[in-house]
Amino acid sequence: MEKNRLEAFSDGVLAIIITIMVLELKVPPPEAGTPHTASLSDLKELLPVFYSYVLSFIYVGIYWNNHHNMFHATQRVTGGILWANLHLLFWLSLFPFTTAWAGNTHLATTPVAVYGFVLLMAAIAYYILQRAIIAQQGTGSLLAAAIGRDWKGKISPASYLAAVPLAFVSTWIAIGLYVLVAFMWLVPDRRIECALAGQEKS
Amino acid sequence: MEKNRLEAFSDGVLAIIITIMVLELKVPPPEAGTPHTASLSDLKELLPVFYSYVLSFIYVGIYWNNHHNMFHATQRVTGGILWANLHLLFWLSLFPFTTAWAGNTHLATTPVAVYGFVLLMAAIAYYILQRAIIAQQGTGSLLAAAIGRDWKGKISPASYLAAVPLAFVSTWIAIGLYVLVAFMWLVPDRRIECALAGQEKS
Amino acid sequence: MEKNRLEAFSDGVLAIIITIMVLELKVPPPEAGTPHTASLSDLKELLPVFYSYVLSFIYVGIYWNNHHNMFHATQRVTGGILWANLHLLFWLSLFPFTTAWAGNTHLATTPVAVYGFVLLMAAIAYYILQRAIIAQQGTGSLLAAAIGRDWKGKISPASYLAAVPLAFVSTWIAIGLYVLVAFMWLVPDRRIECALAGQEKS
Amino acid sequence: MEKNRLEAFSDGVLAIIITIMVLELKVPPPEAGTPHTASLSDLKELLPVFYSYVLSFIYVGIYWNNHHNMFHATQRVTGGILWANLHLLFWLSLFPFTTAWAGNTHLATTPVAVYGFVLLMAAIAYYILQRAIIAQQGTGSLLAAAIGRDWKGKISPASYLAAVPLAFVSTWIAIGLYVLVAFMWLVPDRRIECALAGQEKS
Repeated sequence: MEKNRLEAFSDGVLAIIITIMVLELKVPPPEAGTPHTASLSDLKELLPVFYSYVLSFIYVGIYWNNHHNMFHATQRVTGGILWANLHLLFWLSLFPFTTAWAGNTHLATTPVAVYGFVLLMAAIAYYILQRAIIAQQGTGSLLAAAIGRDWKGKISPASYLAAVPLAFVSTWIAIGLYVLVAFMWLVPDRRIECALAGQEKS
Repeated sequence: MEKNRLEAFSDGVLAIIITIMVLELKVPPPEAGTPHTASLSDLKELLPVFYSYVLSFIYVGIYWNNHHNMFHATQRVTGGILWANLHLLFWLSLFPFTTAWAGNTHLATTPVAVYGFVLLMAAIAYYILQRAIIAQQGTGSLLAAAIGRDWKGKISPASYLAAVPLAFVSTWIAIGLYVLVAFMWLVPDRRIECALAGQEKS
Repeated sequence: MEKNRLEAFSDGVLAIIITIMVLELKVPPPEAGTPHTASLSDLKELLPVFYSYVLSFIYVGIYWNNHHNMFHATQRVTGGILWANLHLLFWLSLFPFTTAWAGNTHLATTPVAVYGFVLLMAAIAYYILQRAIIAQQGTGSLLAAAIGRDWKGKISPASYLAAVPLAFVSTWIAIGLYVLVAFMWLVPDRRIECALAGQEKS
Repeated sequence: MEKNRLEAFSDGVLAIIITIMVLELKVPPPEAGTPHTASLSDLKELLPVFYSYVLSFIYVGIYWNNHHNMFHATQRVTGGILWANLHLLFWLSLFPFTTAWAGNTHLATTPVAVYGFVLLMAAIAYYILQRAIIAQQGTGSLLAAAIGRDWKGKISPASYLAAVPLAFVSTWIAIGLYVLVAFMWLVPDRRIECALAGQEKS
């Protein structure tokens, strides 16, 4: 099976997820009969929605980036990899929902916890997909060599797992953890880039 | 005519269908003037919408998967195949509507029956598309050899056809049938994979 | 300039246009406090929206099909062709608006006329794009040979031009003309296919 | 790293941005119980929304066009370029929001200023992306040679910077500047086309 269409389909879904989240960002229209006015204070009301949009945009960007690197180190796609990929896309597709809920409730406790839960499930789905590819590649797997001990891939779900209950103590701890993990990933995954570069050289 | 653009367009439409269904998953915003609160019970209200989203996500995933395999076994695209493909995309494009309706009405009888009707029409459209490709390939058709007796492709529309009237007896029978057929397809279509692998070997 | 990205971008826009139109197809959710019920009569209310969706789906399909054929007969893309293509996409992007308006007003006079006006502008934009490609190809243009006298491309805008004022006499005459032109195009554009096949042979 | 997937993802996001803006263009549905009527005066109410849609459509078209040219002159994509590209897409993804706000408030002062602020940020993001590619290409950069002194790329952000405060004097001055800059860019970027053509010749 070719990986091109899987990549194209995933790119399409990720492009739509990252873009439709912005549909939640809307100033309520003026009521019928009132003059059409608007002020910066209307924007202030939207700030929590904007912040959660920014965070989710970065997260989808990170997933797209890592997905790109992972499949660059993948040659063959099996039925199992295909479904593991759809499973990942499923959890990512819930980002617009959790982003909107957290934003609209001005970062209330439950939505912030649920936001972390979906992050956790996406991280687990990513891990499963990675395992499926490595299993298909067998010993001497290019991807396995590339990710090495994969400490980022282990810290992330652990952080989300901690953040979900901590949200009920303080939403700011949970949000702080989400932001921290995002920053950790913003550094592009040089491990795979390096492994690939090394292979191309040899 | 090249098949690439047909595949790219279909991927685009399927990616959008699978993603916009999530737009229906929204907690109603707090009324103006009330404090911004949110609880897990808000999520419970959404459960039917969520369940129907999961089922439809899996169905679109199955269609994408099978579409991918089918066109992998297709070399040439004619005008007839192109329109048969658009006909399939039309019925798939109604999934967001039936999914939202079934979810918002907490799986009421009529929406569950209509959900099955659209599944049935999509299955028939898929069958027509398959026939159009096989007719174009003529005797010794790779796709015809790949699908063999195609029992899955025959059980599915039969199940939907049974489910639509059965929904008026009990929605759970109908939903059970939809879930069962989905599980049946979750096993990737090894027939085509095998036929292709066999051909590449010889 | 390569034509691949222009094709990919156009495919993306057309795939989104054809799919978001379905978002208008929604049963109003039950009022808060009332039981979750649904009946087939809810669907009957949606019939005009559904009909206009079907017609617009077919029209976007026709445009995608013809766009596909036209660029198959195009080798080089200039800046002028690129903007002529965006101009076409602009008018096509208004289809979801006119479709929703015509559907929601149960095919009232003005929306049906405006629907035809946008069809007319899209047809003119298509003609301009075709001219831009032929001008770039110069004498011995493959596309010019392929479209020949292009009677379909001339009847269509003439029909829309007639339909807009006729909508104020009877919406059914206008709608009849839209349907008739769509049927005329449903036959795929064999002229270009033949010209291309002929060229590949020689 | 390959540039194909970056181009495909960007095309997807831009295609969605340019299309979902049209979702804001909707005639309010008739109230329940009232007859389904519609008139041209309903459209007049929508004119500001339509105008801002047209302007934003042209802007996204310009960005797509320039993005296309820029990556045509780019061979390798690094992690930095990838994130600079996502940063650009982020600001472009806010166009649907600012377009809708400006349109719905009938081009009120604050939304028109915010519209310009987002244009400014997108222009800066484009500049950063351009710098990142040139830095990666090093001396003898094809892109650096292609853009030359880049006066368009310098006038644009300067105009937006002027337009934001001027919007509080008169919205028409600000809007006039946005339109002027758009017209300036509508002429396709022949510099890069020429540089590429020159290189292909030699």
